[in-house]
Amino acid sequence: MPHPWHPIPGGVTAPEGFLAAGITAGLKASGRPDLALLLAPQGAVCAGTFTTSRVRAACVDLCAERLKAGGGRARAVLTNSGHANACTGERGLADSLSATRATAERLGLAEGEVLICSTGVIGVPIPMPTLLAGLDPLVAALSPAGGGAAAQAILTTDLVEKEVALEAELGGRRLRVGGMAKGSGMIHPAMATMLGCLTCDAGVPVEVWQGMVRRAVERSFNAITVDGDTSTNDTFLAFAAGEPLHPGLFAALEAGLTAVSQHLAKAIARDGEGATCLIEVRVEGAPDEAGARAIARTVCGSSLVKCAVHGRDPNWGRIVAAAGRAGVPFDPRVLAVWLGPHQLMAAGEPLPFDRPAASAYLRERAAGAYLRDDSVLIRLVVGEGRGEGRAWGCDLSDQYVRINADYTT
Amino acid sequence: MPHPWHPIPGGVTAPEGFLAAGITAGLKASGRPDLALLLAPQGAVCAGTFTTSRVRAACVDLCAERLKAGGGRARAVLTNSGHANACTGERGLADSLSATRATAERLGLAEGEVLICSTGVIGVPIPMPTLLAGLDPLVAALSPAGGGAAAQAILTTDLVEKEVALEAELGGRRLRVGGMAKGSGMIHPAMATMLGCLTCDAGVPVEVWQGMVRRAVERSFNAITVDGDTSTNDTFLAFAAGEPLHPGLFAALEAGLTAVSQHLAKAIARDGEGATCLIEVRVEGAPDEAGARAIARTVCGSSLVKCAVHGRDPNWGRIVAAAGRAGVPFDPRVLAVWLGPHQLMAAGEPLPFDRPAASAYLRERAAGAYLRDDSVLIRLVVGEGRGEGRAWGCDLSDQYVRINADYTT
Repeated sequence: MPHPWHPIPGGVTAPEGFLAAGITAGLKASGRPDLALLLAPQGAVCAGTFTTSRVRAACVDLCAERLKAGGGRARAVLTNSGHANACTGERGLADSLSATRATAERLGLAEGEVLICSTGVIGVPIPMPTLLAGLDPLVAALSPAGGGAAAQAILTTDLVEKEVALEAELGGRRLRVGGMAKGSGMIHPAMATMLGCLTCDAGVPVEVWQGMVRRAVERSFNAITVDGDTSTNDTFLAFAAGEPLHPGLFAALEAGLTAVSQHLAKAIARDGEGATCLIEVRVEGAPDEAGARAIARTVCGSSLVKCAVHGRDPNWGRIVAAAGRAGVPFDPRVLAVWLGPHQLMAAGEPLPFDRPAASAYLRERAAGAYLRDDSVLIRLVVGEGRGEGRAWGCDLSDQYVRINADYTT
Repeated sequence: MPHPWHPIPGGVTAPEGFLAAGITAGLKASGRPDLALLLAPQGAVCAGTFTTSRVRAACVDLCAERLKAGGGRARAVLTNSGHANACTGERGLADSLSATRATAERLGLAEGEVLICSTGVIGVPIPMPTLLAGLDPLVAALSPAGGGAAAQAILTTDLVEKEVALEAELGGRRLRVGGMAKGSGMIHPAMATMLGCLTCDAGVPVEVWQGMVRRAVERSFNAITVDGDTSTNDTFLAFAAGEPLHPGLFAALEAGLTAVSQHLAKAIARDGEGATCLIEVRVEGAPDEAGARAIARTVCGSSLVKCAVHGRDPNWGRIVAAAGRAGVPFDPRVLAVWLGPHQLMAAGEPLPFDRPAASAYLRERAAGAYLRDDSVLIRLVVGEGRGEGRAWGCDLSDQYVRINADYTT
């Protein structure tokens, strides 16, 4: 859909008034940055979506409770990487509480205005003295240019940092939306992804903001899959703070939110463990948008489709088999399938197609995945309904198996 | 559960009165057996369960229609391997019809009494002259010793044939249940597995038989997963024919059905593409049996758990993360996890355990998978409910990726 937003450099601190920092506190054995802080301007509203897993980390419980208790108001997020603080019992909650209390003191905020995200190994408590010792230098490093450092400090097995910022002129004002995210394994979000954070310098009523964020998450983080495993820590937090925006511009703002969320979600899929390419599946003609997205995500998540793409094999049989088991009704006799520009199937039956050319398409798209915003495009038309939906994933390589067989996470 | 059944040699022709045959008709380029026939005694009842995929093969539609129209009566099943007859349009149905018509003529049966199963490549029509030319030698080969040949002829990428027979003395009578199955990839049955066939020499009213078969399938074929991909052709057909059985013995008979179905289902999981071991997940303390099975199957199907088992890594964090996303409510603070004899977790928190010994357990179990009826056992207690359930799967190896990246299926 066309929208007024264009990309600018930066991430979560691109919008006016937001500060961030990322430092090496010593939580990770690797010596990489591992502690991040985001500070939103006074009056900020915050909408959060969290993992639907029954086994969720202490920090997730704390975020959800505080956003509820505070009526969608929050000012800061502390993020530690290296330790997920999941399956850590009473101690896990106590650690989350003391980390946010110490952060609130240093920022002059109420305890309930500070949120915390954790990512890393499950079942090992956070080394709290190390984390607490990092808070003074972290707060001192807060700056309007700190978005990049924060995006670095939240990574774990990711190969690249994921941040983006968009700008638009809306109603005579310059508005910006920024975001950062992390995640490359245990990615099949069911409410949000591993960790994601979005900022916006428009003032929006909290209920309106919550609705926008929920829809944007459905169309982005909840539409990606790397390996079908939903994390214990999935958290997405979106802040808005600034001059109130005219309600007539809400739809335009939502387009920006959705674009930032989709950019981050695709970046996560592209950085999937062992992946060599991003796969985008578009489904048209379904009964509704949710149905279209369900079919798209099932195709994206099929191990057999992912292996075929990895092998550069234009295997339409696996695509339709995956579509068939998505639980969405459609008439298989109208099914049409395209791989990039190559139509592989029409009216439910295979077409003769140029197999070497289709295979070459897969090879070329894979080669460019890290350099350009390229993806392998699989398109299905499943009927004459108005439902359209997209999902993103990545190929399944022997490298994925080696990464996850050889190392404990 | 203890039951009166003990294993005997043989498969679908072990029960009294059943005949079978398997031959090489020339449908497979490999020259391996590719055409099978099973003939049930007069008066047989038949219950069938089929793929829930929206994209299902012509033969699946035909089987489902004929069983419905015939009120659960059928006499024969023809199975061709090499061609799935899925996504073959009008021609696919015409081919299924002419194959069963020609078989019925040779057996002196009504057309509606003959069923057909197909397995192999999607989208390529069956070479019908080859199939039809095979019918005379196939019918001539029918014998009470033909179960093994039939079990061979239904295979595709399977490494081993899968057949089993059990015997019991019930009410002063010798009863037998036999079965055969095939499948090693695209295995995540949603009503039944790729192809399975069960025979029994007890007379059972058709409605009772249908109920027994439905429950046995839930506890066996619908509880396995290799790669999360549900096939277009999943079909399980169960025949019963013989002297009427006293209703007081139905429960004992059902135990035999369940045991045969579980044996075949586990054989499919153990023969999963690229697998080095069978994984059994047992869940106890869930609200109900279906919930327990859902958690068990989610753990079994997790790519991260499968990779960890392949890497002989006692990674309980991935086990609980998978359990958490199964969609079944439980209190994570009571969660307990065992890997074989090693308890890894109690009351929702990790226990100190002998990591090298747990890793050695995984190595030993994997080494024996093909030789003994060994499996990697993962046990979870999720609460104090009465629901118990089991699921079976296999590890995920780089070999799985290579098999499915390098070859078109």
